[in-house]
Amino acid sequence: MAEKILKWSLGGKKENKWREINGLDLFISEHEVEHIKKHPRAKLIRLGIGDTTEPIPDIITTAMVGRARALSTIRGYKGYGAEQGSMELRMAIAETIYRDMDIKGYEVFVSDGAQCDISRLQMLFGSNATIAVQDPSFPAYIDTGVIIGQAGRFKEETGKYSQIAYMACQPENNFFPDLSITGKTDIIFFCSPNNPTGHAATRQQLEKLVEFAKENGSIIVYDSAYAAYITDASPRSIYEIPGSKEVAIEISSFSKFAGFTGVRLGWTVVPEELRYSNGFPVIKDFNRVVCTCFNGASIIAQAGGLACLSVDGYQALRNVIKYYMDNAGILIEAFESLGMKVYGGKNAPYIWVHFPGSNSWNVFAEILEKTHILTVPGKGFGPGGEEYIRVSAFGKRESIVEASRRLKKLYKR
Amino acid sequence: MAEKILKWSLGGKKENKWREINGLDLFISEHEVEHIKKHPRAKLIRLGIGDTTEPIPDIITTAMVGRARALSTIRGYKGYGAEQGSMELRMAIAETIYRDMDIKGYEVFVSDGAQCDISRLQMLFGSNATIAVQDPSFPAYIDTGVIIGQAGRFKEETGKYSQIAYMACQPENNFFPDLSITGKTDIIFFCSPNNPTGHAATRQQLEKLVEFAKENGSIIVYDSAYAAYITDASPRSIYEIPGSKEVAIEISSFSKFAGFTGVRLGWTVVPEELRYSNGFPVIKDFNRVVCTCFNGASIIAQAGGLACLSVDGYQALRNVIKYYMDNAGILIEAFESLGMKVYGGKNAPYIWVHFPGSNSWNVFAEILEKTHILTVPGKGFGPGGEEYIRVSAFGKRESIVEASRRLKKLYKR
Repeated sequence: MAEKILKWSLGGKKENKWREINGLDLFISEHEVEHIKKHPRAKLIRLGIGDTTEPIPDIITTAMVGRARALSTIRGYKGYGAEQGSMELRMAIAETIYRDMDIKGYEVFVSDGAQCDISRLQMLFGSNATIAVQDPSFPAYIDTGVIIGQAGRFKEETGKYSQIAYMACQPENNFFPDLSITGKTDIIFFCSPNNPTGHAATRQQLEKLVEFAKENGSIIVYDSAYAAYITDASPRSIYEIPGSKEVAIEISSFSKFAGFTGVRLGWTVVPEELRYSNGFPVIKDFNRVVCTCFNGASIIAQAGGLACLSVDGYQALRNVIKYYMDNAGILIEAFESLGMKVYGGKNAPYIWVHFPGSNSWNVFAEILEKTHILTVPGKGFGPGGEEYIRVSAFGKRESIVEASRRLKKLYKR
Repeated sequence: MAEKILKWSLGGKKENKWREINGLDLFISEHEVEHIKKHPRAKLIRLGIGDTTEPIPDIITTAMVGRARALSTIRGYKGYGAEQGSMELRMAIAETIYRDMDIKGYEVFVSDGAQCDISRLQMLFGSNATIAVQDPSFPAYIDTGVIIGQAGRFKEETGKYSQIAYMACQPENNFFPDLSITGKTDIIFFCSPNNPTGHAATRQQLEKLVEFAKENGSIIVYDSAYAAYITDASPRSIYEIPGSKEVAIEISSFSKFAGFTGVRLGWTVVPEELRYSNGFPVIKDFNRVVCTCFNGASIIAQAGGLACLSVDGYQALRNVIKYYMDNAGILIEAFESLGMKVYGGKNAPYIWVHFPGSNSWNVFAEILEKTHILTVPGKGFGPGGEEYIRVSAFGKRESIVEASRRLKKLYKR
């Protein structure tokens, strides 16, 4: 038993700093706890883990309240829903989020969140699939790959897993990998707007990516969880790119779009056009995984999701998103006023701040110690995150303003 | 890509009747749809898929309503909860469900349902783990094993997968496997009260099972999703058996206990005492899977779960369970009055009816055609289910009474 599991088990081989303690979120929260012990009276400002802070608009919670209350009535009680979600919600997602992209309701699979769908997709792909990830990237792609057995050995020297292809995304390449030096893999995880860099891929970049996937017979898993934060003309979905349906799955979420981080609701789109090399539709296999490994998102959360996509619900959410993006503007101003190079924050609620020549763990520690502000060390997102910290724009306005004040004080020349 | 996935993909090798169409539930619902087309005016009675039908007590939905409404307030808004669930709920499960069994709150992992936890456990075990299942058994154990790559080839002749150990559970052995002929496996899936047979394992049977697991270094995955339906002295948890914490994980659910099939809430217990052969605690690896592949159950569902475990909530649920068990009594009476041999229905909401020498698919079809009642063909639960049908006791009283009338008419000598 042990031997088999230990191929990735914590009980097995040595792993790097933050993986050993079960992921980046735990690393942050453990430092938070430590810091509070050490400075019990300090007013801690949390700009680390990207968690939403603003209330959900009434029109949306009212729908959830109604659904929950109805469960106590004979006519309103409902048991199992379809594993794939209610067709009404699937249609609403197709028609609202994918308007003009001709996505069908039955191609949309409602879930309890994008992260959970990443692991279901990994069950679909299996341990023999090869994967590529942006570097830096959201840790779940690699972490689920480690668990499913795709990653190979972790190398301390490089901070990379031997069997994962890391696609460097840096300011020098406008946060888009040099595909001429990117190896061929079965799967390409691609997050845009990107967590952590905040960069939204341009149309031209995505056209290149789709072309690259076609040439290599790769499947793109496109993570658009932050698409609602895009303020310019960058594509909000991979399906804005012609031909993408033959190569791309899209995962997304109500978490950041609607403040549903605790409510739990997301979706995955698998277009019918996406086929294996033998012509068999991938959607049939994903449907099987969903029906076997999942039992549907809570029908209460689904009622809320439907309200999010109503005209009034959607407008109300735009205002919440604008609030967070105004926060981002305040943080950008603070860092830029200090002469620092800042990325992101225009199409995403994350600011990616460069500290040239630094060790990101030390920058994280210094900011926490001296300003009582929690951020995330860039290296937690992969070796490509070294010299950077990620600052989240989720938070109360007064905290954001206060954080800016403290940061200006700390780094003033 | 394809080749790798096709080890289990539908696009790959031929599979048996109901797996080809994505599981037993879909098989039933497709026959339902067909039948309604064919007999549009017939009053169909659904005793197939075991879905709850009775409203959830007010005290429980009121808690969910309150939690949902609070999400629109500044003080009541909540984002991400802990992936493992709120400690308050974990403690409540430990102290209510596992009273006197000394299960700690931190050993309880709250989830969105037992079926989802089965697939997370399978990710933990991996493709090289060997598994044993009761025959007949709830399909998810095998189906997730097929997806993760544990099952081997499906053999039409036997109706079994080559690498899965099937433990025959029949009336002849009081629905408990002959362990002297059961091979050694890494994992033993064991469901009690059993779906589909309705048999609740006796204390003595579970003592044997725990001893067997210890001898073989196996991990028991004990599915107690129907424990709330036990009316006699049968153990309600594997942890009633001394020494079980060193060998057993328990998965359970609010679905049948509280009518949460649509709300989605369950839990898994991994005792600290459960270790790999190298002494490393399994709970640490499961915690890692949960934190990597899952993002917590909906906080609204968790608020409901907490209310289920309050004194008044628990009592209200006892009444709902009694309603279903009275249904079971009515169905048992009907079949027994026809001189048929009936199992289950005393400690579980399922009746397991024997039709000696029959093909269970044909019995299912005949009952549907002649009485417009949906059941489940026993063979859908494995070769050991041949000659049986499973009849669910979930339903409105009037439907159960009407179903009994129709069945008596059909089979009257």
